[in-house]
Amino acid sequence: MAKHVYDFKEGNKDMKALLGGKGANLAEMTNIGLPVPQGFTITTEACNAYYDKDQALWPELIDEIFAHMTELEKVTGKTYGGTPPLLVSVRSGSMFSMPGMMDTILNLGMNDATIPVLIEESNNKRFVLDAYRRFIQMFGEVVKGIDKKKFDLVFDRVKEDKGYKLDTELEAQDLEIIVEGFKEVYKENVGVDFPQDPRVQLLESVEAVFASWNNNRAIVYRKENKIPHNLGTGVNIQSMVFGNMGDDCGTGVAFTRDPATGQAQLFGEFLMNAQGEDVVAGIRTPMQIEEMKRINDHLYHDFANVCEILENHYRDMQDIEFTIEKGVLYILQTRSGKRTAQAALKIAIDMVDEGLIDKNEALLRIAPEQIDQLLHPAFDKKALAEATVISQGLNASPGAASGQIYFNAEDAVKAAEEGIEAILVREETSPEDLEGMIKAVGILTAKGGRTSHAAVVARGMGKCCVAGCEAIHVEEDKKIFTHSGKVYKEGDFISLDGSTGFVYEGVIETTAPTLDKDFETLMSWADEVAKLRVRTNADTPQDAAQAISFGARGIGLTRTEHMFFEGERISAVRQMIVAQNEEDRVKALDKILPYQQDDFEGIFEVMKGLPVTIRLLDPPLHEFLPQRDKDIENLAKEMGIGFEDLKSRVVALNEVNPMLGHRGCRLAISYPEIAAMQTRAIIQAALEVTKRGIPVMPEIMVPLVGTKAELDYLEEVVRGVADKLIEEAGVELKYSYGTMIEVPRGTLTADKIAEGAEFFSFGTNDLTQMTYGFSRDDAAGFINEYLEKGIFKVDPFVSIDPEGVGALMKIAVEKGRKTRPDIGLGICGEHGGDPDSVKFCHSLGLDYVSCSPFRVPIARLAAAHAVLEE
Amino acid sequence: MAKHVYDFKEGNKDMKALLGGKGANLAEMTNIGLPVPQGFTITTEACNAYYDKDQALWPELIDEIFAHMTELEKVTGKTYGGTPPLLVSVRSGSMFSMPGMMDTILNLGMNDATIPVLIEESNNKRFVLDAYRRFIQMFGEVVKGIDKKKFDLVFDRVKEDKGYKLDTELEAQDLEIIVEGFKEVYKENVGVDFPQDPRVQLLESVEAVFASWNNNRAIVYRKENKIPHNLGTGVNIQSMVFGNMGDDCGTGVAFTRDPATGQAQLFGEFLMNAQGEDVVAGIRTPMQIEEMKRINDHLYHDFANVCEILENHYRDMQDIEFTIEKGVLYILQTRSGKRTAQAALKIAIDMVDEGLIDKNEALLRIAPEQIDQLLHPAFDKKALAEATVISQGLNASPGAASGQIYFNAEDAVKAAEEGIEAILVREETSPEDLEGMIKAVGILTAKGGRTSHAAVVARGMGKCCVAGCEAIHVEEDKKIFTHSGKVYKEGDFISLDGSTGFVYEGVIETTAPTLDKDFETLMSWADEVAKLRVRTNADTPQDAAQAISFGARGIGLTRTEHMFFEGERISAVRQMIVAQNEEDRVKALDKILPYQQDDFEGIFEVMKGLPVTIRLLDPPLHEFLPQRDKDIENLAKEMGIGFEDLKSRVVALNEVNPMLGHRGCRLAISYPEIAAMQTRAIIQAALEVTKRGIPVMPEIMVPLVGTKAELDYLEEVVRGVADKLIEEAGVELKYSYGTMIEVPRGTLTADKIAEGAEFFSFGTNDLTQMTYGFSRDDAAGFINEYLEKGIFKVDPFVSIDPEGVGALMKIAVEKGRKTRPDIGLGICGEHGGDPDSVKFCHSLGLDYVSCSPFRVPIARLAAAHAVLEE
Repeated sequence: MAKHVYDFKEGNKDMKALLGGKGANLAEMTNIGLPVPQGFTITTEACNAYYDKDQALWPELIDEIFAHMTELEKVTGKTYGGTPPLLVSVRSGSMFSMPGMMDTILNLGMNDATIPVLIEESNNKRFVLDAYRRFIQMFGEVVKGIDKKKFDLVFDRVKEDKGYKLDTELEAQDLEIIVEGFKEVYKENVGVDFPQDPRVQLLESVEAVFASWNNNRAIVYRKENKIPHNLGTGVNIQSMVFGNMGDDCGTGVAFTRDPATGQAQLFGEFLMNAQGEDVVAGIRTPMQIEEMKRINDHLYHDFANVCEILENHYRDMQDIEFTIEKGVLYILQTRSGKRTAQAALKIAIDMVDEGLIDKNEALLRIAPEQIDQLLHPAFDKKALAEATVISQGLNASPGAASGQIYFNAEDAVKAAEEGIEAILVREETSPEDLEGMIKAVGILTAKGGRTSHAAVVARGMGKCCVAGCEAIHVEEDKKIFTHSGKVYKEGDFISLDGSTGFVYEGVIETTAPTLDKDFETLMSWADEVAKLRVRTNADTPQDAAQAISFGARGIGLTRTEHMFFEGERISAVRQMIVAQNEEDRVKALDKILPYQQDDFEGIFEVMKGLPVTIRLLDPPLHEFLPQRDKDIENLAKEMGIGFEDLKSRVVALNEVNPMLGHRGCRLAISYPEIAAMQTRAIIQAALEVTKRGIPVMPEIMVPLVGTKAELDYLEEVVRGVADKLIEEAGVELKYSYGTMIEVPRGTLTADKIAEGAEFFSFGTNDLTQMTYGFSRDDAAGFINEYLEKGIFKVDPFVSIDPEGVGALMKIAVEKGRKTRPDIGLGICGEHGGDPDSVKFCHSLGLDYVSCSPFRVPIARLAAAHAVLEE
Repeated sequence: MAKHVYDFKEGNKDMKALLGGKGANLAEMTNIGLPVPQGFTITTEACNAYYDKDQALWPELIDEIFAHMTELEKVTGKTYGGTPPLLVSVRSGSMFSMPGMMDTILNLGMNDATIPVLIEESNNKRFVLDAYRRFIQMFGEVVKGIDKKKFDLVFDRVKEDKGYKLDTELEAQDLEIIVEGFKEVYKENVGVDFPQDPRVQLLESVEAVFASWNNNRAIVYRKENKIPHNLGTGVNIQSMVFGNMGDDCGTGVAFTRDPATGQAQLFGEFLMNAQGEDVVAGIRTPMQIEEMKRINDHLYHDFANVCEILENHYRDMQDIEFTIEKGVLYILQTRSGKRTAQAALKIAIDMVDEGLIDKNEALLRIAPEQIDQLLHPAFDKKALAEATVISQGLNASPGAASGQIYFNAEDAVKAAEEGIEAILVREETSPEDLEGMIKAVGILTAKGGRTSHAAVVARGMGKCCVAGCEAIHVEEDKKIFTHSGKVYKEGDFISLDGSTGFVYEGVIETTAPTLDKDFETLMSWADEVAKLRVRTNADTPQDAAQAISFGARGIGLTRTEHMFFEGERISAVRQMIVAQNEEDRVKALDKILPYQQDDFEGIFEVMKGLPVTIRLLDPPLHEFLPQRDKDIENLAKEMGIGFEDLKSRVVALNEVNPMLGHRGCRLAISYPEIAAMQTRAIIQAALEVTKRGIPVMPEIMVPLVGTKAELDYLEEVVRGVADKLIEEAGVELKYSYGTMIEVPRGTLTADKIAEGAEFFSFGTNDLTQMTYGFSRDDAAGFINEYLEKGIFKVDPFVSIDPEGVGALMKIAVEKGRKTRPDIGLGICGEHGGDPDSVKFCHSLGLDYVSCSPFRVPIARLAAAHAVLEE
């Protein structure tokens, strides 16, 4: 028969899976000699067995529980239900912390027979009766599901009858009435008397804790935090200590370092003559931990000593719950404390300096996602607490922004030029909105997911964005949005929190990020460990410089199409698109050439010889033309062509499924002159920069290749132009020719494609779209539904799906390397900045990941974690 | 050094790849002792070497050619360019027959020096001069690209000067003038004199034939017929025999059986005192082969004997070209004759009866695609009786067609692209008309026999053709034809009956074809051999019945959405879509239920216990709503809801990429009540039909599954409804639950999906879309471009791409079978009716293919071929 119950002295901190976090740490503390009220833990395995047995306790378990209770009676010298009475608490505790999600019952062992003994023993009738009424209520609510209001009604009636304002005014005799009243409430609702048998109290409480593993809020919490549903909870039965027995009693919570800043000093709060729940509930304002010195210097030093022991033992900042009963300190819980990113960073670095942990452990102490917080401004916490929420969308790009709302790019640009902090609000954004997005301080869209245009571009810029906020109704024409009947019009102030997705009314104060020496230190440690290099996706010298400052080792993706929208060049691009023949098209392309060359020169100069992967034009041409008749008319006038001619070109270019349409290399195959112009711009820029004495390493990348013949066809165009230019210039210049792998067929035929490609860059956005058959533009709604219904554990556009998309990537890596062992392998999809995806890429043995500049440090740390977690 | 030239006696019929079909068969006939004018063949390898060497002949080849010419001089006892003069023809001949696509030059060896000798030898000055002027013209046109009209001008001027109407009226001295005129035309256009050196004549002609391998019409023909472009053509140099030397001369073409019906009797046409081109060009109307008996009984028997030898030797119906020179029979070519599907079928069955071939060979004699012709409609007899006959021509290629008339290929192509059923009307067709013939639904010519270009090509395509309809007067320039004074102009409707040769006014209703005993016999042989079963895609009892009559063994796909559009139910469907909550949606679904149940009862009754796979609702909901404001307004009125409400629902449902949007199982997961209603309809129908004593085997299929959890989620819905209904009914009813595999991720995780799916049905349409990233709605344009540029060899929507889509299918088959060895495996995409795809499915070891009813026999035959070709 399996052992299902462990005395605290039988366990240790490494038994979290079996005993839960709380139980394992209580055991550990017991064994290192700290003052822990004694007790025992029922294992998580027992919890799972309980579910397997149709939710009933079984005789062997019951016997085992009471055998340990007998042992506890021996240790404490008290008797459960006897004299002196042993009182116990029953607390949940699972492998991963789920604060407040499951149930706790205190003061078991109290009944009408033990009350007089306890009164006599404590010489505090009021305290004992208060504890009894709390027990009856807690047991009634937690075990029997009685509505809290029913107890409150009794409680408040007594207070009212007496004319009391505060609970503390209640006297012992009042509490006697309340105890009787609570017993009546219990009987009315449950049908039987409140159980006087402490064995019944215990077993029903254990069952209630088991059952709370699967209450709704626990399930939601586990989903939210990616905790498996089959772990089960442990149950801790521990002898009670009381912080509310008098003025030599108290209770508190403390961190061994400051969880907000990481400063190496005790940080915590306590209340004298109070129960733990009083601290947490915030009913009374607690004292800072330093005040304990004043109240009881000896106790403070005892406590500080315990804290030091615990931190040194656990080699991490601890979050400690303690109680003082009649001047004696008891430790009720310890665990690694949650902390801000800033604190996490400082603590990790400090602990290495202190010799507590090594560099690798320091790296593992910081979740890559946390780094994000260090790079963006955040709302001031206090101001945030008072702000009015309008709605919540998707946390598409982190950061915080307050500003005035504008409903189209033009207006936002105009406002920004007048010095207004503009927030661009759109149904959804398109490349035409780019300039407005650049000038805005934040972006809010009603549609689109975390990988929508708005989200991708905003993240690229490190700009705050809330996307897919479906509860707001945007009317771009009227320049308003409405929510719950309230209208927000142009110029109104709102605030966006891109880290949470919340949208607020008005302006909220922000705090700026600071990247200090600790950050640089940690990143340098990460780079020492990591095998994956981290590049960036950058379309401008500014982005490139930003990424370099964050430690990018090259550019993995330069999207040339974004450049097409800027300034005057869009007009040449449009001429190119409406050209009736190759000659006119080449003329228009000749106008674009100098702009493109200039773009590339700027980027090459910043990158100083680091590799720069430039993707040939990718999006369908209709993205460069207006869609509405009015805009078409204006453009036709501007271009000096007929409305009907332009309109018919727009209509001809429209597609039913543009994502699967005439784009990527398909465009270049139809119009090789576009690829030729882009190659010319790249190579001329590279030659120019080389002549200035700056090394250049261009990589020309063909998008959307599914068939080797596509790559071959364009190789003639690209190498034809490039090799001729290099030869004519007589300059030593190397470039490479490769392809995106983003079409499933590209992965399946990667062995053949590798014959022509010197490198592969996985475009996991498109690969995910096609592998799942999900359009990023349309899927946000049903992906959310999938997450809610448990069909998906994680959005595949957020984290690479290893079974499907990942399987194709693996095929491509293997086939590619088989043909060309030294083939360059990277990823430039949005996933490049997602820590789980970075780890997956490491497991595939890629050379690099590429992500938006603000994700570079996250990816660097994730790359190090990938090695350390192997 | 490779041997590049073979004397006829050095080759045999199995050397087609090297010598071309014509050359190989000339060699074969030589070796079995048939009267073949001797000669030699330059190999296809030489042709390819010619292209490798930048299209120039090289000294070794030239030497080899003339060495064989010397040998030929020995055999014939004549001298090339000397006395007695050896005249030769130079003819193309590739591995696969490409009739009329490449070039031929006759009468080489004629020059000013040999003419007098030939005149003396033949004692027929007129004949010799006629041959000379033909040679100059042919050489000028073919080798030097001189416009035919320039020669015609000279020729017609002489005729006019003399007041002649017919060419036969020209006398020797007239021809002398023409020869001189032609030489002048030549010199004017080429810049030098017509070459008198027979070596130059030969080498330039050989080069011209090589070059003709890559002329435009040859390339188009190869694409149409899926002939590889890298085979090259052989060149046959053969001593001339003349059918136009006098009345004891003649020339003709014959088939050893009737190529239209398959009747086992000689079928052919000949002309006395004529060259072969006269028969083919249809300038004079030839005599039937039987008339030869009357003219020269002995010759007829000689010829019939040769035909029998050849057919027995080749064990196939032969298409033979012959010439009679001064009463002596020569065989110029034999090849397996092209035939109508009906003839192919009859000949194959007859030859098995005759013991010439076995059943398997009979099956292989019929290309699966040919079967299509047997299934083509004929005119409704009643409608036909009332139709107005315009005229009657030759029944050149069977079938029935109604359409609008166009007078040149270009106009016909344009019309066809606009969706018009075009009938191409020509004086006579030439290879240049090929594209027009492909696009037209039928072909009508005023001139030419059953072996004319129009007739041969049309039969090859299984396209209806009436040829030699001499009573109509075609004026191609004016785009009209006239008959008995009535004018038929471009765009007028006519109907053609290719089986009778009748031409009718207007459009005539057609009826389905009836299939005879031979067809049933062949199909039963196919089924004996085939391993794949063939099912059908059918949404109605009518389609199902049609497919059953074609031998379908079940339904592989019933699309429920087509049913949603019918009659009144569309209104309930729309109510369901605009429903604001589940309750309203269920109300609307309740209205649809009886219709759906009725649909399924009808289908189950027809299928009598054969498996019926029913796919749950697949398309995005917006497909059921109107898109234009006006239509939305009408519908809103009809439904009694506000325009804005309906419009906003339409807008909300619109998607950027509907193909990758909210459809398939994603719909059913959002609205499980839809799947529940459909399941109810299926199971209630099955129970009802079972109660009538008819067995039922329903298979419920979930579309667009990419993740096992999707299938699991819906399994609860489907089995929940189904099992309850069956239990309540107390009837024994089995059904199965499975899924489409049409999303790449579905293939990659097929092992997991197979845990929940009893069968997989490959949806290769969507799988192709997602594997390539091609939207079928948008890709037609660039796929054509890919085909033209040689990037694709075949459209992947026509034939399964084995490397990409096929690789995913293979993964799914292996993974699916690993989890569930007896899993049902089929395919229901359009590819199910494509012979190459059927063979691929066989190679994967699928259980069945499913295709549209009219493709069922094609798939059955292809399935047999798959086994026989293994």
